Amino acid sequence: MTSEFGLIDAFTAPFEKRAPGLLVGPGDDCALTSVSDGMALCATVDALVEGVHFLGAIFEDAEIGHKALAINLSDLAAMGARPRWFLCSVACPADAASMARLTGISRGMAALAQRAGILLIGGNFTRAEALSLHITALGEVPTGQAMLRSGACVGDVLFVSGTLGGAALALGWMREGRPMPDALRQRQSRPEPRLELGLLARDFASAAMDVSDGLLQDLAHLIEKSGHGFEVDLSKLPLDPALVESGAPLDLALTGGEDYELLLTVPQSKAVEFERACAQRGMAVTAIGRARSDDRLELVNAPSHLSLTGTAKRGFDHFG
Amino acid sequence: MTSEFGLIDAFTAPFEKRAPGLLVGPGDDCALTSVSDGMALCATVDALVEGVHFLGAIFEDAEIGHKALAINLSDLAAMGARPRWFLCSVACPADAASMARLTGISRGMAALAQRAGILLIGGNFTRAEALSLHITALGEVPTGQAMLRSGACVGDVLFVSGTLGGAALALGWMREGRPMPDALRQRQSRPEPRLELGLLARDFASAAMDVSDGLLQDLAHLIEKSGHGFEVDLSKLPLDPALVESGAPLDLALTGGEDYELLLTVPQSKAVEFERACAQRGMAVTAIGRARSDDRLELVNAPSHLSLTGTAKRGFDHFG
Repeated sequence: MTSEFGLIDAFTAPFEKRAPGLLVGPGDDCALTSVSDGMALCATVDALVEGVHFLGAIFEDAEIGHKALAINLSDLAAMGARPRWFLCSVACPADAASMARLTGISRGMAALAQRAGILLIGGNFTRAEALSLHITALGEVPTGQAMLRSGACVGDVLFVSGTLGGAALALGWMREGRPMPDALRQRQSRPEPRLELGLLARDFASAAMDVSDGLLQDLAHLIEKSGHGFEVDLSKLPLDPALVESGAPLDLALTGGEDYELLLTVPQSKAVEFERACAQRGMAVTAIGRARSDDRLELVNAPSHLSLTGTAKRGFDHFG
Repeated sequence: MTSEFGLIDAFTAPFEKRAPGLLVGPGDDCALTSVSDGMALCATVDALVEGVHFLGAIFEDAEIGHKALAINLSDLAAMGARPRWFLCSVACPADAASMARLTGISRGMAALAQRAGILLIGGNFTRAEALSLHITALGEVPTGQAMLRSGACVGDVLFVSGTLGGAALALGWMREGRPMPDALRQRQSRPEPRLELGLLARDFASAAMDVSDGLLQDLAHLIEKSGHGFEVDLSKLPLDPALVESGAPLDLALTGGEDYELLLTVPQSKAVEFERACAQRGMAVTAIGRARSDDRLELVNAPSHLSLTGTAKRGFDHFG
C-alpha cells in the first residue's frame, strides 16, 4: 500500500509523541516502554468493524475513533488499571473517501486518549474491503491489586456505576433516524470509560467487570468466574432517564449492552465507605443486589410499569 | 455473536495456559503480566487480511496462523527483544466453514508460539465479511539494549540474514498453481522469525530492522532514521537458490518483500567477531555493504546474468 507511511503520519498526527516511560514510539519495528517496579502490565484488545459494530451513516468519524478506544479503556477500568499505552491496527478500503475518514477517527480517538492519559505507541495500516479498528490497550496496576472477575464472596454488595439501557435505546433510535438529546446519543456513540472509578474501587471491591454485553450476560460471567450467584433488585436498577420517559422495555437495561459501566462487588463491611468515597468524587454508583451462596441469579421486584420481553424474559427464565 | 465464547475456547485450546510472569491470562477483562526490573516492554502490531495478504485458496489454515504471528515476531527480533506475550484480534465471517478454519489457524499459530516462547494472553472475536487476524506482540529487552533503526554510523558493515527473494518467487508460483519444493513454499507461507539472531546481535549491531517491504524500501527506512546511506554490493546478495536456478529477475530480492530476514549494521571493529559468532550458531548472515557518510543508496555490481526491471529499476534510479 503505497500511501501507508503518509497514512501513519496523518493518523498519528493528533496523538501525544513524548511521555515518561516511552523509550521508542511509532516509527521503529516496535514501540518500547519502560515498566515500573512492582507493577503488573494489563493488556486487552477489542475491535470495531464497519457494518457490525457501527454504521458510518449514523456515527460521526470522531465518534467511531472515540468508541474504538473507549471500549478498551473500559476493560482497563474494570481491572483497576491505569491506562498507559495502546496500539491501533486499522484495516481500511484504499479509496480516498475511506482514508479521509481516518482523520476524523484519529481526532476522536486522540481526544479521549489525552483525557485518559494513554499514549499511542504503535499501529498498522492495511487495505481491506471494510473499515475496522483493532486496538490493544496496555495499562499498569500494582501487582496484587488488580480487580478480577473471580473475587466475589457471599454477602458482597453488587454495585453498578452510572445508568443502564441508554446505549441500546440510542442505537435503536439512531437506526430509525429519530432525533434525541445529545446526552442520550453519547451513551451509544461516546461511552465514557469509568477509569477513575476503577482506580478508586481497587481499595474496596472484591471483583469487577465492565457491562459490555448487557447486565444479565455480564452477571453470568461474574457467576461463572466466582461460583457465586446474585440476587438483583430490579426496582433499584439505575435506568437511563430516557428509558423511563419513553416507556421502553426494561430489556434494554438488562440485555441491551454497550453501557460500559462497571459492575463491582464490595464486601458489606466496606460498602458504606465505598458509597461515601464515590459520592465525594461525584461518581454515581448504585447498590443493586448481593452475592449469594449458590450460583443462581435471582431477579426480584421487576417494576410493574416496565415490560420484560424477548431476550430479557428468556434470560430471566434461564437464570432465575 | 452467540458462539463467541465457544470460539474463544476453541481458538485458545492449542495454546499454553501457564507461564512465569503471567498473572491472569484470557478470560478476564484484561490479561495481567508482571514485568521484570530493568526491562523495557517492546510492543508491535501487524495484521493479515483475507484477499489482501493471503488467499485461503493457496495457503493452508495452519500456514495463515503461523504467518500472522511470525510477521510480528520478526519485528520483535529486529529490536533484539525476547518474545513474551501476544494478543490476537480475529474478525471472521459467521458461517460454519469460516469458523472451522480458525481451528487450523490457531494450531499453526500455537506451534510457532510454543517454539518462540511467546504466550497468548488475550484476544477478541468479531464478525466481519472477510477473515482477518490482528496480532499485538509484546517482548522484553533490557533497557538501553534494544536495536533501533537509527543507530547506523559511517563505515558500519551492512549484514542481511538468510536469503532474499524466495518469498516473492513462491507467491508468484503459488498464484500460478505451479508446483515447488517445500523449502521454497515455506519462504512465503511459514517465514521463520530470526529471534535468536536478534538476541545475539544485541551485542554487536548498531542498528537493525526486518526485511518485510523488500530490501530497497527497508534500506530507505534505515537511511531515513539514521541519516546514513549505504553502498550495497548486489553481487553479494544472498539470493534464494530457487531464484538463481529459475532465472527469475533480481527484482524479487530487492523489492519483492516478505523475506522477514534481519538487516543489521555492525561497527567494522566487531564485524569479524559477529560473523564468527553467527557461524558458530549456524546462523547465516552475509555482509552486503557499508554505511556511507551521505544519505544516498548506491547499488553496485549488478550481476549481468540477472535482470533488473520494473520497480527495482525505478528504485535503482531513484536511490542510486
